[in-house]
Amino acid sequence: MKGLFISFEGNEGSGKSSVLSWIQKKFASEGIEIYLTREPGGNKIAEQIRNVILDKSNTNMDSKTEALLYAAARRQHLVENINPLLEDNKIVISDRYIDSSLAYQGFARGIGIQNVYDINMFATNNELPDLTILFDIDPDIGLKRIAANSNREVNRLDNEALDFHRKVHMGYMLLVKEFKSRIKVIDASKNFEEVCDEVYKILKKFIAENYNQ
Amino acid sequence: MKGLFISFEGNEGSGKSSVLSWIQKKFASEGIEIYLTREPGGNKIAEQIRNVILDKSNTNMDSKTEALLYAAARRQHLVENINPLLEDNKIVISDRYIDSSLAYQGFARGIGIQNVYDINMFATNNELPDLTILFDIDPDIGLKRIAANSNREVNRLDNEALDFHRKVHMGYMLLVKEFKSRIKVIDASKNFEEVCDEVYKILKKFIAENYNQ
Repeated sequence: MKGLFISFEGNEGSGKSSVLSWIQKKFASEGIEIYLTREPGGNKIAEQIRNVILDKSNTNMDSKTEALLYAAARRQHLVENINPLLEDNKIVISDRYIDSSLAYQGFARGIGIQNVYDINMFATNNELPDLTILFDIDPDIGLKRIAANSNREVNRLDNEALDFHRKVHMGYMLLVKEFKSRIKVIDASKNFEEVCDEVYKILKKFIAENYNQ
Repeated sequence: MKGLFISFEGNEGSGKSSVLSWIQKKFASEGIEIYLTREPGGNKIAEQIRNVILDKSNTNMDSKTEALLYAAARRQHLVENINPLLEDNKIVISDRYIDSSLAYQGFARGIGIQNVYDINMFATNNELPDLTILFDIDPDIGLKRIAANSNREVNRLDNEALDFHRKVHMGYMLLVKEFKSRIKVIDASKNFEEVCDEVYKILKKFIAENYNQ
């Protein structure tokens, strides 16, 4: 597989999606095309699975059911959307990927990071991103940002208690220790321009060193 | 966990669902209540997942996506429907369970029985049925029975080529060797009354030896 596969990760309200959009435009202005995608979703089957996961009335969904549904949507997203782009030597950035499952289901829901890692290795044929940028934000601040952003629809996961989002954050910090070389942490509490600039510099360097057009 | 957990397995058109319905009435007439359920389904979330799996337009569904969706539906079915009945010391028979995934996705789709077994051990917390009755039918005959049965709606899996259903049958036969003590094979090519009688005798004996009301 050629191309570059990069994921953006972080707590709710970390601002990663806005930065992602800015980053794409910035690189486009330099003639470098970046393909954006997001989880869960990306195609018809994955969107159908997404609807089951985020259905606000599914309050009794078991944590392992949720983890398996995310893995199923990830699988379909990978084979239908991401891998064809990588085979065509493109640069792909996914808004969330496996680390979300490890932090949310594996750690915060208490299923176990290793267990969730194992089913995702099955789902992805062991395909991890080449680089992951983790947007580090205090979960309290993240949730306040979401509440202040009236354009964003609240879903089942946004409604989780603050305590859950703190656990997600702890889960991400454990992953940073586990995957030192793959995950780069950026301080997402800074203002938008500073965060964009920092992410841009990391990507610029990574692309220069790892991508052959 | 008390109660008894029994699964019925077999190729499409093996007649297991009709026999199941007869069996329930027969035991009811003797004062023994049997709770019937079926996969994929059993509750709102599992039905939503079932709709994604059986959607006739989802022809590009990846085999691993399918295996993960079945495991997700199974998980929710187990925790929401089956386990509460077993905890209440009931006898539960499920029309399909883990062996369907092992035969269909693991063997016939070529993902590997062991791989599919592993994700299902995650999904079920290693919970296998106490007894499984496998309805052994020549896949050619099974498909002809379905075609002749106008009451049954054709879904995506019925549309698979005959070759696929032959592989499913081979997968089941491998499972019989692997799980000798759990899986009892019955000849489903016999007429309805004979099959019902044979299944009844197996269940009657198993319940007498393993169930304490």
